[in-house]
Amino acid sequence: MYKVKVYVTLKEGVLDPQGKAIQQSLSSLSYQEVEEVRVGKYIELFVEPHEQLEERINKMCDELLANPVIEEYQYEIEEAVR
Amino acid sequence: MYKVKVYVTLKEGVLDPQGKAIQQSLSSLSYQEVEEVRVGKYIELFVEPHEQLEERINKMCDELLANPVIEEYQYEIEEAVR
Repeated sequence: MYKVKVYVTLKEGVLDPQGKAIQQSLSSLSYQEVEEVRVGKYIELFVEPHEQLEERINKMCDELLANPVIEEYQYEIEEAVR
Repeated sequence: MYKVKVYVTLKEGVLDPQGKAIQQSLSSLSYQEVEEVRVGKYIELFVEPHEQLEERINKMCDELLANPVIEEYQYEIEEAVR
């Protein structure tokens, strides 16, 4: 079994209103040192061993997990004991 | 300037209907090797240097970024050149 950690983030230049809202909330809570906030998704997949694992992870990200128009993704694969 | 990468995940045992929906969608797209999906948040904070940085990050997570009742968080701090 593998655990795949997928990080989906907005591409640079894409506006992030959710991040802006969090930054403003932090500022009003007296955390003025936070200059910018960007919000993304963190997705854990527990995957049975499969040939072409990386290729299939890439396809899952392109087809379902990320929106390639405005988002980019990275992932790490590690062995999982369950 | 520091870049803080915050990972917010549901605690073990907390139901994750969004993850379940993704797992079922992946399965119907022929990715049956994915047994379980857990969805969390990935938040990047760009922070000015501050005394007690870690202590303040912990407080931000407890007060705003995560819901301590059902979520847990981890973070990494790295130097950011902007």
